[in-house]
Amino acid sequence: MTTENKGKGTSRRSFLTGAAAMGAGAVTATVAKGAGPDPLIAEKQAWAMATGDGVDATPYGLPIRFESDVVRRNVEWLTADTISSINFTPIHALDGTITPQGCAFERHHSGAIELAKEDYRLMINGLVDTPLVFSYADLERFPRVTRTYFCECAANTGMEWAGAQLNGAQFTHGMIHNMEYTGVTLRTLLEEAGLGAAGDLADKWVYVEGADASSNGRSIPMEKALDDVLVAFKANGEALRKEHGYPVRLVVPGWEGNMWVKWLRRIEVTAQAIESREETSKYTDTLANGVSRKWTWVMDAKSVITSPSPQAPITHGHGPLVITGLAWSGRGAITGVDISLDGGKNWQKARLAADGQDKALTRFYLDINWQGEDMLLQSRAHDSTGYVQPSKAQLREVRGLNSIYHNNCIQTWHVYPTGEAENVEVS
Amino acid sequence: MTTENKGKGTSRRSFLTGAAAMGAGAVTATVAKGAGPDPLIAEKQAWAMATGDGVDATPYGLPIRFESDVVRRNVEWLTADTISSINFTPIHALDGTITPQGCAFERHHSGAIELAKEDYRLMINGLVDTPLVFSYADLERFPRVTRTYFCECAANTGMEWAGAQLNGAQFTHGMIHNMEYTGVTLRTLLEEAGLGAAGDLADKWVYVEGADASSNGRSIPMEKALDDVLVAFKANGEALRKEHGYPVRLVVPGWEGNMWVKWLRRIEVTAQAIESREETSKYTDTLANGVSRKWTWVMDAKSVITSPSPQAPITHGHGPLVITGLAWSGRGAITGVDISLDGGKNWQKARLAADGQDKALTRFYLDINWQGEDMLLQSRAHDSTGYVQPSKAQLREVRGLNSIYHNNCIQTWHVYPTGEAENVEVS
Repeated sequence: MTTENKGKGTSRRSFLTGAAAMGAGAVTATVAKGAGPDPLIAEKQAWAMATGDGVDATPYGLPIRFESDVVRRNVEWLTADTISSINFTPIHALDGTITPQGCAFERHHSGAIELAKEDYRLMINGLVDTPLVFSYADLERFPRVTRTYFCECAANTGMEWAGAQLNGAQFTHGMIHNMEYTGVTLRTLLEEAGLGAAGDLADKWVYVEGADASSNGRSIPMEKALDDVLVAFKANGEALRKEHGYPVRLVVPGWEGNMWVKWLRRIEVTAQAIESREETSKYTDTLANGVSRKWTWVMDAKSVITSPSPQAPITHGHGPLVITGLAWSGRGAITGVDISLDGGKNWQKARLAADGQDKALTRFYLDINWQGEDMLLQSRAHDSTGYVQPSKAQLREVRGLNSIYHNNCIQTWHVYPTGEAENVEVS
Repeated sequence: MTTENKGKGTSRRSFLTGAAAMGAGAVTATVAKGAGPDPLIAEKQAWAMATGDGVDATPYGLPIRFESDVVRRNVEWLTADTISSINFTPIHALDGTITPQGCAFERHHSGAIELAKEDYRLMINGLVDTPLVFSYADLERFPRVTRTYFCECAANTGMEWAGAQLNGAQFTHGMIHNMEYTGVTLRTLLEEAGLGAAGDLADKWVYVEGADASSNGRSIPMEKALDDVLVAFKANGEALRKEHGYPVRLVVPGWEGNMWVKWLRRIEVTAQAIESREETSKYTDTLANGVSRKWTWVMDAKSVITSPSPQAPITHGHGPLVITGLAWSGRGAITGVDISLDGGKNWQKARLAADGQDKALTRFYLDINWQGEDMLLQSRAHDSTGYVQPSKAQLREVRGLNSIYHNNCIQTWHVYPTGEAENVEVS
């Protein structure tokens, strides 16, 4: 252990002097306090002196027990019942872009149902040449595609219209996940049924509904239905989870999550929108003058810093700090993300982990030297249409304060000298 | 139910006549037999008439119970003990390219150990300017990257040298997974320690070892260490699983899995390779003349059809059939995959789900009309270096029959008129 103690002491000094070389600027404060004996004594290193679990221990593995706090969470006061409610992805604790299914948010209107593949049927009816019903096995026989997309609930960040309400990125921005889907394009299935009977497709719609009690019906313009919508049966390589619509859900890239119908049972080609509950009394946006916008399907460009954030405070003292977060746009790819440390007065470019992909999450990083100063952390996304994520003030000016859905404004975290962070508003 | 019965009958007819339009050629046999009353009667549709699980039911979700057979499996007779053994990814049941951590294969030499972040230390020593020991929290402060790579055990497909041994893609090719990793480049950490003391880097090495009892030490040339090797702490967005090296593992893109040291505890910069057990008596390839090749680090281009395959037979009768599989190369990106239905006499181009990515899995598809004929299914990968995956005969000609590792030959599945498939050899 002598070597390790020696190394450790050296490490801390080197980390400080070396920080400039790693591109994070000069460091003038200590990284960690104390240089006493290392607590990592031999008695604690049981792992190096005994054997571990065999390869038969966990046929399907779960996270290690130390990560038991990285889970979906719901907010009890938000809804009357958990079967018509939401939980939130622990984005403050994740990195990269893929969301594991096990911690990807859920939203149900009548609970997550259990529907076996053998019992599954998908009907296509309405203005089609031949009404069809597909079994699950039928769907597996059509040409397949695999594509990665984000899914964001229209209500994500909805509590923030009125001010800073929920203290944590998981709760303000966690109604989002990003998975690699495999399935059949909706275009393939519609063409199988034949669209001749629909006549001019420019003004036609599809109405999609699920097999759960709520049915959650939504109207989708034919143009989108024939563009990039998927009838998906796998996410991140494996079967959809029960709570994400097993065995089959709709994937409507870039559009609000409510349209991504789970336990998909029927697709009707119609001459007009159905104007269901889900697209009239819900999932519309009431403006300051009382008029409601409807058909606000696209999720506009948005971003959030996931760490540091209220649930992911700085615990390591002054010096090098990694700022990281997520950006996305329902209209295309993310082309850039700016970060402000001072509530929007000054901005610098974040580093994207990879080129932005169409309608998928982009991870960004910024490496700074933090000297314990107060920070008003913000991120601002740019997308491939030239759109720039608005401030809360800009969004309120156009949309008022009555809305629930489609809040894509810039988020602010106040980081205190202690390293703790809080959800705040800046003017 | 009248509508659904009617639709269903129509569906089956339409699926047949429509198949030509979906680009799969003429279909002459039935898709499914029988047109009696649909068993999907109202009593079975409990899911549509009752509420399901609330959003608090599963903070961390698992696969639905119907998918309980999609799990890692080991082969009991393969090794004397499960703590020094392997299990296999159920690739026959997956699609897309991402492997969920929960079913991603494991290989241990002394079992999966439990090592808390608080107890974790990583030492860099040897020919460096300043020996360092990093805590987990230290690692989180360096600039991070996020990249997707496959990890393949050198012994994947190793049982096939002598002939068709294991009946299923999970067992012949399931020592592979593909995840999105987040971590720090090894270059960043080596530069933090300073490489001036190492002098000319061209002939230097790093020796990496794990904190488990086996330590599993391997030598890596400095050129690779400074190229794309990662010290990773997240996979698919979340913490590494215990069995994949929590909290920190090495990622050595394109190189054999044995070098991806788990529970990474030490990196020593050395003037020569250590020639450890893991790179002399193991992980070397003995040729026909008794001479062993060593330093065979790169996993050459390879592919396998995952469905249909012995564990994924055709159960839907004649007509449209999706053939799908995976391809990868440790030397770069997959540029194309050919498929043969007749044991290599004729080849046709598969459709790639997306452009091949550097050292990551590529999913391919081919849509055919299967009329119940015997098929000798094969896939053949091409990579960005121009390399073409060899036949078993070609590989044996160069390498003989003594090898265990680095079998990247073309795999053959014999598909019978019943739809069942078997692992076979063709000359």
